[in-house]
Amino acid sequence: MTISPLAPAGFPDLPVIDGITFAAAAAGVHYAGRDDVMLAALAPGSTIAGVFTRSATRSANVLDCQAKLGADPVGPAAIIVNSGNSNAFTGKYGDGSVKAICGAVSDALQIDERRIFTASTGVIGERLPHDRIVGKMQELAANLAPDSITDAAKAIMTTDTFPKGAGASVDINGQTVKIAGIAKGSGMIAPDMATMLVYIFTDAKIEQPTLQALVSGHNAKTFNCITVDSDTSTSDTLIAAATGASGVDVGGNSDFAQALHNVMLDLAHQVVRDGEGATKFVTVNVSGGQSDSDAHKVALSIANSPLVKTAIAGEDANWGRVVMAVGKSGAAADRDKLNIKFGDITVAENGWRAPDYSEDATSAYMKNDELSISVDLGIGAGKSTVWTCDLTHGYISINADYRS
Amino acid sequence: MTISPLAPAGFPDLPVIDGITFAAAAAGVHYAGRDDVMLAALAPGSTIAGVFTRSATRSANVLDCQAKLGADPVGPAAIIVNSGNSNAFTGKYGDGSVKAICGAVSDALQIDERRIFTASTGVIGERLPHDRIVGKMQELAANLAPDSITDAAKAIMTTDTFPKGAGASVDINGQTVKIAGIAKGSGMIAPDMATMLVYIFTDAKIEQPTLQALVSGHNAKTFNCITVDSDTSTSDTLIAAATGASGVDVGGNSDFAQALHNVMLDLAHQVVRDGEGATKFVTVNVSGGQSDSDAHKVALSIANSPLVKTAIAGEDANWGRVVMAVGKSGAAADRDKLNIKFGDITVAENGWRAPDYSEDATSAYMKNDELSISVDLGIGAGKSTVWTCDLTHGYISINADYRS
Repeated sequence: MTISPLAPAGFPDLPVIDGITFAAAAAGVHYAGRDDVMLAALAPGSTIAGVFTRSATRSANVLDCQAKLGADPVGPAAIIVNSGNSNAFTGKYGDGSVKAICGAVSDALQIDERRIFTASTGVIGERLPHDRIVGKMQELAANLAPDSITDAAKAIMTTDTFPKGAGASVDINGQTVKIAGIAKGSGMIAPDMATMLVYIFTDAKIEQPTLQALVSGHNAKTFNCITVDSDTSTSDTLIAAATGASGVDVGGNSDFAQALHNVMLDLAHQVVRDGEGATKFVTVNVSGGQSDSDAHKVALSIANSPLVKTAIAGEDANWGRVVMAVGKSGAAADRDKLNIKFGDITVAENGWRAPDYSEDATSAYMKNDELSISVDLGIGAGKSTVWTCDLTHGYISINADYRS
Repeated sequence: MTISPLAPAGFPDLPVIDGITFAAAAAGVHYAGRDDVMLAALAPGSTIAGVFTRSATRSANVLDCQAKLGADPVGPAAIIVNSGNSNAFTGKYGDGSVKAICGAVSDALQIDERRIFTASTGVIGERLPHDRIVGKMQELAANLAPDSITDAAKAIMTTDTFPKGAGASVDINGQTVKIAGIAKGSGMIAPDMATMLVYIFTDAKIEQPTLQALVSGHNAKTFNCITVDSDTSTSDTLIAAATGASGVDVGGNSDFAQALHNVMLDLAHQVVRDGEGATKFVTVNVSGGQSDSDAHKVALSIANSPLVKTAIAGEDANWGRVVMAVGKSGAAADRDKLNIKFGDITVAENGWRAPDYSEDATSAYMKNDELSISVDLGIGAGKSTVWTCDLTHGYISINADYRS
């Protein structure tokens, strides 16, 4: 598969997180000749937080993770993820697959099942051949190593064209706290939340409720602000695990909070950059809304509009479609107070095309790989930023025959 | 432009409506070498009802029509429509265009401006060259004829690949009442309401409030139940005019109500059949919802899902994406009570693929031009039917370079 033209130059050098080891293996769940299972083992006492899809048809794995999230951080923990099959809409058999996989991890690593978190991503509605995963457990356990996070990032890919990682080191009173995150996702990416798997690891010392509040809050401004095609998956999962191995308590520390936000935003942007068929990375800024929520509605309406997204694919500065998307959003808007910019170019204001609008200048701007559309509603202080990509022939090709 | 493969065999023979005359002309608003303005003159006393887009950025024409709708049905009336330019988001200049056109019709036909209804469809945000339309007014007035409705249907087309018409004759106590309707629309088609122009004419005798109640009610089950790409235009307009020339009072008559519904549904289906790039006409039936409104949410979620629509384009019986769309709809749903059929084939039940599911049989079914997807939510009596089309490379091609 061709790597997305919007991909970063390469996978970043992620910091090694004390207290966490990774392994990947080729279990042959669906793909041949590549790793499709990753295992992460977490030191005893690690605190674990999570955010999950709100889909009413969420997978057995998601339901299981949600039930386990509140458990006390006693003993070691583990995360195990397979690609190729989502184990979603597989009835009671799906619950059995989760149990079988958790049981095998528990046996291999001597971890309480209540501290084992699973995820599956790929085709919906096909039985997960969990025996193949269980059969690889000894190999996975034997290969666990602190520096194998890149292999883990690769093993969870489905239609992704590149593995996604982001990291940070934060200096707190002369001590260093590290964060490393990986993600997969490229289609079915929309609030709430982006369809994807995200795993974030840190050696920070932080209570579970504090970590949970941080990731939930950041999620609203990162993964819930990206959209590729407005569809939402049955398996969306974000898990953050803190080993505490650095000994640095980060509760209430704003530098840590900011670094965690940056890692999450970086991963969210990478998911958009790998949007199926994407050739343009688009930032939609909305200001002047009656409320933040109204501004967010407008931003999503623009970012999800097939007509806006195809115009961007065609490098057409069709701001009329932006006006249309503002109008249909359901948010309060006044035609004559709208101000619309493509990049720094004002294209519309006072209910009309800007007086010194230049079609040539705007068309030249549209040829960039990175674009911004900014809308000021002019009626309040509400604002929102959302990231999306264009809608191209590539999206149709990928999705008209993905399953086979 | 190639005619949609889903188009009807030809334009129907529409009944001539007593009290209405039509004319079309080539004003050169945007297109060359084709009619782009239609004028309909309505007999004195005609009652007029309308349904309009709810967009917050609706066009000057829509605002003008909405303001005029309540006027007493005194004297003659007229409808004038141009294609090629939507006169939307054209600021104060747009209001002036509406005034200029209404003034010219008023002068040419001696009609009170409060009884003149305009519409413009096409590109957003460009000045409407209304002088070209005004310049054709004498020609239009001179050519008005009772049997020119086909020319009118053709003059209002934009990206439509075929003109759309539907008619009915209803026998009421031995007397005949006639209905003839025309429509344009092929993209930006979504509730509320489908982006399009619809004009329905009848010689029935009916009070304005009764006619309004009928078209508003039918609209909810016809044009508000179709979707091509989830986008909504700034110009959606449906106008129904009753001349009363038949002398038959149809107030409270259920045969007339049904015939009017059928004409509206026929036109709505034709709009979907002309969906940009469409190769499949898809009926989405949802039953067993907690309420009709919940069922409608699910039906729209399925019908608007890019992943479902690309799977249909690829003739892939990917019911997993239907499960996804049910889950993300926001309606109450229980994974284990869902029943999903493609045509008559049960593909999923009891939270899983149906036990005797045959991939071959389902794949063969998906090759049809007309498909149905039926979802029973199994938790109530709510139901809804929505019509849509597939999402293909054709849609991208049409919309990535429409404006130029």
